Amino acid sequence: MIAVLKNGVTKTQRDNLVHWLESQNVKVHVSEGEMQTVLGLIGDTSKIDIDLLSGLDIISNVTRISEPFKSANRRFHPDDTVIEVGQGESKVKIGGGNFCIIAGPCSVESEEQILAVARSVKASGAQMLRGGAFKPRTSPYDFQGLRAEGLHLLLEARKETGLPIVTEIMSASHLELFSEVDIIQVGARNMQNFELLKELGRCDKPILLKRGMSATLKELLMSAEYIMSEGNEQVILCERGIRSYDNYTRNVLDLAAVPVLQGLTHLPIVVDPSHATGVSRLVRPMACAATAAGADGLIIEVHNDPVHALCDGAQSLTPEQFAEVASRVNEIRSIMH
Amino acid sequence: MIAVLKNGVTKTQRDNLVHWLESQNVKVHVSEGEMQTVLGLIGDTSKIDIDLLSGLDIISNVTRISEPFKSANRRFHPDDTVIEVGQGESKVKIGGGNFCIIAGPCSVESEEQILAVARSVKASGAQMLRGGAFKPRTSPYDFQGLRAEGLHLLLEARKETGLPIVTEIMSASHLELFSEVDIIQVGARNMQNFELLKELGRCDKPILLKRGMSATLKELLMSAEYIMSEGNEQVILCERGIRSYDNYTRNVLDLAAVPVLQGLTHLPIVVDPSHATGVSRLVRPMACAATAAGADGLIIEVHNDPVHALCDGAQSLTPEQFAEVASRVNEIRSIMH
Amino acid sequence: MIAVLKNGVTKTQRDNLVHWLESQNVKVHVSEGEMQTVLGLIGDTSKIDIDLLSGLDIISNVTRISEPFKSANRRFHPDDTVIEVGQGESKVKIGGGNFCIIAGPCSVESEEQILAVARSVKASGAQMLRGGAFKPRTSPYDFQGLRAEGLHLLLEARKETGLPIVTEIMSASHLELFSEVDIIQVGARNMQNFELLKELGRCDKPILLKRGMSATLKELLMSAEYIMSEGNEQVILCERGIRSYDNYTRNVLDLAAVPVLQGLTHLPIVVDPSHATGVSRLVRPMACAATAAGADGLIIEVHNDPVHALCDGAQSLTPEQFAEVASRVNEIRSIMH
Amino acid sequence: MIAVLKNGVTKTQRDNLVHWLESQNVKVHVSEGEMQTVLGLIGDTSKIDIDLLSGLDIISNVTRISEPFKSANRRFHPDDTVIEVGQGESKVKIGGGNFCIIAGPCSVESEEQILAVARSVKASGAQMLRGGAFKPRTSPYDFQGLRAEGLHLLLEARKETGLPIVTEIMSASHLELFSEVDIIQVGARNMQNFELLKELGRCDKPILLKRGMSATLKELLMSAEYIMSEGNEQVILCERGIRSYDNYTRNVLDLAAVPVLQGLTHLPIVVDPSHATGVSRLVRPMACAATAAGADGLIIEVHNDPVHALCDGAQSLTPEQFAEVASRVNEIRSIMH
Repeated sequence: MIAVLKNGVTKTQRDNLVHWLESQNVKVHVSEGEMQTVLGLIGDTSKIDIDLLSGLDIISNVTRISEPFKSANRRFHPDDTVIEVGQGESKVKIGGGNFCIIAGPCSVESEEQILAVARSVKASGAQMLRGGAFKPRTSPYDFQGLRAEGLHLLLEARKETGLPIVTEIMSASHLELFSEVDIIQVGARNMQNFELLKELGRCDKPILLKRGMSATLKELLMSAEYIMSEGNEQVILCERGIRSYDNYTRNVLDLAAVPVLQGLTHLPIVVDPSHATGVSRLVRPMACAATAAGADGLIIEVHNDPVHALCDGAQSLTPEQFAEVASRVNEIRSIMH
Repeated sequence: MIAVLKNGVTKTQRDNLVHWLESQNVKVHVSEGEMQTVLGLIGDTSKIDIDLLSGLDIISNVTRISEPFKSANRRFHPDDTVIEVGQGESKVKIGGGNFCIIAGPCSVESEEQILAVARSVKASGAQMLRGGAFKPRTSPYDFQGLRAEGLHLLLEARKETGLPIVTEIMSASHLELFSEVDIIQVGARNMQNFELLKELGRCDKPILLKRGMSATLKELLMSAEYIMSEGNEQVILCERGIRSYDNYTRNVLDLAAVPVLQGLTHLPIVVDPSHATGVSRLVRPMACAATAAGADGLIIEVHNDPVHALCDGAQSLTPEQFAEVASRVNEIRSIMH
Repeated sequence: MIAVLKNGVTKTQRDNLVHWLESQNVKVHVSEGEMQTVLGLIGDTSKIDIDLLSGLDIISNVTRISEPFKSANRRFHPDDTVIEVGQGESKVKIGGGNFCIIAGPCSVESEEQILAVARSVKASGAQMLRGGAFKPRTSPYDFQGLRAEGLHLLLEARKETGLPIVTEIMSASHLELFSEVDIIQVGARNMQNFELLKELGRCDKPILLKRGMSATLKELLMSAEYIMSEGNEQVILCERGIRSYDNYTRNVLDLAAVPVLQGLTHLPIVVDPSHATGVSRLVRPMACAATAAGADGLIIEVHNDPVHALCDGAQSLTPEQFAEVASRVNEIRSIMH
Repeated sequence: MIAVLKNGVTKTQRDNLVHWLESQNVKVHVSEGEMQTVLGLIGDTSKIDIDLLSGLDIISNVTRISEPFKSANRRFHPDDTVIEVGQGESKVKIGGGNFCIIAGPCSVESEEQILAVARSVKASGAQMLRGGAFKPRTSPYDFQGLRAEGLHLLLEARKETGLPIVTEIMSASHLELFSEVDIIQVGARNMQNFELLKELGRCDKPILLKRGMSATLKELLMSAEYIMSEGNEQVILCERGIRSYDNYTRNVLDLAAVPVLQGLTHLPIVVDPSHATGVSRLVRPMACAATAAGADGLIIEVHNDPVHALCDGAQSLTPEQFAEVASRVNEIRSIMH
């Protein structure tokens, strides 16, 4: 960490600051230039509060040289993390060159629905099944999901198709209900629900962590770090669009996040083009673009219910549209090297 | 709710849509114009999923006429909500013309610290004490607060000064520890932690709900609605700055949110100029501006610790600076009518 | 256009509004529902000021049914616009299935430089040459480009290589200097320099119009409309990233803009991954992603100067890196259908 | 300027970089720490391209110690700039403790209108008259202003009332028409129309420079610098709201910009609450808030035309509402010290 002092700082002020820093177990290397004094902080600076330091009146500028994340940091763990779920023929890997398509309905609505969707996406090449049992909804008056019953139906669908399942958790108090789930998803709204992240850090399942509505990539990685620092190193990051000012799409899909994150971390990165755009006809071009950008996987909404089917709409694809998307994505994968 | 159909929608498609809407217990009034067909949805449209409807291929546009929030809606509850806490001489009201300054340190650090700050802010005119016991930090390696011990120290400070206390909760599982607290704060990062909001809706304490990092005002009100729809109608909203692209300040303080919210809801609105700007010299002008904009109260960080005092920095004010801010704010209050 | 009146609007107020609207040459169809009154405006509503109308106290909501752009609107011009430049062997088409890579240095610096880059990008498959002669710089103290001399050098490079040239204009008063240029570029900062757009609408060269720093897609299309409404229908749109709050990349490349724009307009859309990210190692994945998203072309920065070469940095690619990107992009193009 | 090298940079790479920097006339002070090497750049670093330097692969981080603006910089010009316009009794000062209210219609529409508004705002305490003659409109089909005729009518209104006039320019080619205008306004969309700024830097009238839609404060100051570096040091900055994601208001009024700018520059700062919010009922609270935040003036839209009057709407105030706002603002001014 480098801290640049303002011009005109007195020797006493500087010494006080250096003592305070040293009391936090970092070594301080003072470099006095002609125009400014620079402090080099050496040692475990991860405990230094950069906001506090930056805000001090005698400080012009503070820069972290080393990123504040450790377990997630590619510098310390150069090899790609590979996440494995499922058994036997249905074993799936994500990361380290292993690409994976996760598909399924927004919400689990009935046994009939989830089984039908699961069968159809499996036939089209999905390797994992997604479906919401606990649904975070902006309004308390909107459908909140089938909850425990929804989890039960997902397990039924897994039994029938073999597809490992991914589903969202909204509270650590529900954790017991998720004991059979393959991958637990943390939604964008809970990306900084730190108490939940710590609990998930103490379980031994892979966690799919979605980027918050307007989270920086560093904040996303620090949230992964909350999970990893408790012992669970199986984290999959998910880019799902960030809030912006235009409204042709629901969010802005930030695809540069994929190669940027791949430089910063060894964790796999999947992309959700369905939630990012909120418009079914945009899912195909964005799924192809995410694949070409190097994503480790995709998570795509597919429905089979008559309201959607009737009107061919919203962000979910029909099974036929999904099959087409999966086929295009696989063509692009086949020429990547 | 008004839904405009696209040109070229067939009668069958339209009838299917109308039947589906009617099956959700709304009446549909079809108005065929020369250029377009408009559906007027009448009845309890709060259950209609506007995202789903908007996304249908046969729909050009959907507009809610009535806001989706009910309990928080000024239209249905025209009188200002007044929140009361504290006992006897220390009784405090917020809302309905009652203005309140809440002050205290970012984190509770020791008995000596919290007592000293509490006494000094009381002397300068603060009516309530804030202080973090559970601290949401971006990094798992940063100080996470004194937790239960911090709550204990806040209660000591209240015993000594009489000031009611406000402090942040991070998980419903900690709720029992908050039984003596006067107002429970929900931080920006948990504004859409819906399971937490529902639990808080079942307790009988006022909740200070901070706006999320990039939440719309409607999302803030829907989160208030989560609390209120469970029975707890004592919610105080807090504007604390939203994420933006410039970095001279930590966030952009959106002061127009104050009069906009006062038009939409009967709930009191307080402003946090300390977190919004992250810079102590900006706290005074922003506190004055918030007061002039009509806020029902302020929440301000004050410290007395030597590191800050040494360097006069960061976002917290010294007790002397706070006294000056409180005095200016009260002058502005005195000429508002 | 649909305008929904507020509840409680009197008959006199409504009649006054209807008369005012009719005085602007639109027909008004009044539909009184049980819950609200809806006005359908028929005729040429493009002259109605939607901001003024929306802001009236008696109006709940206004929705344009027809988009306010006409010449750029795919609804009225279903066939893709194809832009042609260059002569003989060097003839280039963009749009309507014709894909084009434009490459060259950020700034034209010397004859030697521009010739060397032009030759190398031509050899790697670029069909057009870009290079800045007039440079918009945030600081008046930064290099402002070689100006007229830069244009002259670009024409030399075209003479030598045959590559048509694209370069940026910053003021209508320079237009005469651009008489030999093939495509005139309007930069992000001038996207709403309406007097410049009108002048460009009166010349007969293709215009490459970059999206403003935080322009909506509708604003981009309305700026194209400024050019087209003066008679020049040869406009190429360019997505180059929008401002956001994170700083791992310079801007956020909004690739969903590509398929969204292709739905709204018949104009070709190219993508600039160099300016969008500001980081050379991100150019390849983003160029591939833009291609897979269906862009009609790419505009890529390539340098050959020793400072860059020395350090392998910044947003420009070396000629070798560009050759690699062009080859990957062409592979993806070859499997698109 | 401080540049931190990455770990692992070779001595040759470092020496090459140092030579390149020195060739640009800065002295380089190399400080080798245990963990990193820091280059201190001394001298006129304003010519160093920070984007280029930051992007080099061997650089970890670059920080400007000195701000890149000079003429606008308070460090070099500690005293507030005071702008004076008008003659005799109508002389008006802005800045250095002089507060000024500028009021008038969005567009000049007729002689009758502009005279009526000018008289009424003068009576209520406005010291200057605003009114648009050249109007930047998103759509080419919207009213573009009376142009030269509008300027003529403004001068008539000045002759009658004595109020100095402020009006917007959209192209340097119109400059001759503005010879009698008191203050020339540059709108948000032209904040980075650098060729226009340079031309305005060569005239001797005060320039009111509005912040761009999503400009940083540094970009605003650099645009002021474009004007000032050509010789015209009479620049008034204007905060008018920035683009954001919510739509209850048209923009987000960033009032912290006022005290932040007052720290960075000696130029006066005015606030436009009308364009910022787009809603007339929000003008009063935001005008009061801006005043309490320490703004040097306000620019407020006032209309008297029957369409607005009929419906009491949009962002403009009636003369009566303006009188009320001016009176509240003056009360707040009276207690500021």
